[in-house]
Amino acid sequence: MARPKLTNAARPATYEVEACNEKGEMVPTSIAGEHPLTLYLDKRELVTLMTLGHAPEALAIGFLRNQRLVESIANIASVQVDWETDSVAVVTRQMKKDIRKKIGKKTVTTGCGQGTVFGDLMAEIDAVKLRDGVELEDAQLFVLIEKVRKYETIYKQAGAVHGCALATREGEILMFVEDVGRHNAVDAIAGFMWLEDIDGSDKVFYTTGRLTSEMVIKCAQMRIPFLVSRSGLTNMGHQIAQQVGLTMIGRASGRHYLAFTGKHRLKLTAPRPTAVA
Amino acid sequence: MARPKLTNAARPATYEVEACNEKGEMVPTSIAGEHPLTLYLDKRELVTLMTLGHAPEALAIGFLRNQRLVESIANIASVQVDWETDSVAVVTRQMKKDIRKKIGKKTVTTGCGQGTVFGDLMAEIDAVKLRDGVELEDAQLFVLIEKVRKYETIYKQAGAVHGCALATREGEILMFVEDVGRHNAVDAIAGFMWLEDIDGSDKVFYTTGRLTSEMVIKCAQMRIPFLVSRSGLTNMGHQIAQQVGLTMIGRASGRHYLAFTGKHRLKLTAPRPTAVA
Repeated sequence: MARPKLTNAARPATYEVEACNEKGEMVPTSIAGEHPLTLYLDKRELVTLMTLGHAPEALAIGFLRNQRLVESIANIASVQVDWETDSVAVVTRQMKKDIRKKIGKKTVTTGCGQGTVFGDLMAEIDAVKLRDGVELEDAQLFVLIEKVRKYETIYKQAGAVHGCALATREGEILMFVEDVGRHNAVDAIAGFMWLEDIDGSDKVFYTTGRLTSEMVIKCAQMRIPFLVSRSGLTNMGHQIAQQVGLTMIGRASGRHYLAFTGKHRLKLTAPRPTAVA
Repeated sequence: MARPKLTNAARPATYEVEACNEKGEMVPTSIAGEHPLTLYLDKRELVTLMTLGHAPEALAIGFLRNQRLVESIANIASVQVDWETDSVAVVTRQMKKDIRKKIGKKTVTTGCGQGTVFGDLMAEIDAVKLRDGVELEDAQLFVLIEKVRKYETIYKQAGAVHGCALATREGEILMFVEDVGRHNAVDAIAGFMWLEDIDGSDKVFYTTGRLTSEMVIKCAQMRIPFLVSRSGLTNMGHQIAQQVGLTMIGRASGRHYLAFTGKHRLKLTAPRPTAVA
């Protein structure tokens, strides 16, 4: 397969500014980057994403993938990010006619990072049943939680980003992305999976963010059966996770977690602390 | 002024589900509500917001206000929420012709909660200069931080929401809203301000969320000179805050904070702890 021609144009993750603390002292402080990135698909302006700029090429590809605007990575000829004009130009090998119609309906510039056509996604999700016959041992889950904790560098410095990781069921992190919006972090993972030809059906998706309907839908779109977060969830996230048969684990931190749905894929293999009388 | 005819259709904030913890025990757990709410303006479908449903009428009004689709509260005749059809119908007294054109351009259904037309907003923001001659004493800021801490009920129970508060400079909370998306929480505050005829130019806006460009823009749109968050910020949020002259305070927690911009409006009046040798 011909890989698309890519720039490699990550932005600096943090910037230093001065802030005045409660003692009246000026202190140098790291803040997260945030940059507008306007996406052009075959020269048509599609959307302006507000991004940290950690993995802009993967973000552009993943956005097009998750919005169902490009049907395979083989159809992408090049992805060129240019920060002088805050733009990314994606050129396809051959754009499908119905995609052209879809874009016509959908062109919109969003300040929140991006929008997805909810009705369309729900229809697609109705057909999804996630793979069974894969298991996650909680001993490995604890390994992953510990690795993610060590990864979260931008968050620790600047505290204004969401982190997402794609991992194996052995707790190995394949990609870790941080961004100012959680949509973007997820989309960058989806783009990375296409670029590296990674099958999601035996992987684990970790996010620092909340497990809302949209997060569950995107996980299911990528065919990933395990979704893990340190945060909480919503009732709609819960409903959709049940519907698609996702193993959803919230409040994962240290050696604690709560498994909400799809518990049949989770095996309790970690050594349990002995009860103290 | 004739107040719009309103429903009062808040949804339950949390739902109980069973989760399995790391010990293999089933534990009842509160999760946050999340509901689609499709907004119709004079019978035209505009957007589907994913919301906790805490203040759906104020949310609908604030969305229309912040998107500049209705020019004053006096122009809104009624706001009717119907959860059987997951919809809110807003009827105006007289819709302006150019607004009709604007809607034509903008109709979009977003899964992330909502999108805003970034280019338009930035053009508007270029003309904003926030009010000077109002001050915030940090002693009062600490009062507000403590009050917010006590308010955050849904977050504490279910941990999947953002909270926003509109407060006076004396630390009194006028409205506190939580929602699954921070856009929604801000918009609900904007709707509440219209309904109660509250001038933002001497108020404080508190958010649990990150201070990104969009959060700063929305605060400036509401003419509020003080923006406070317990979280961090982005460089674009920082730039826009400087440009509009906003007093932006991050990392506000307990008796700590970092003032990033507009420090001239902040007075250090709180008693300082004496240094211990």
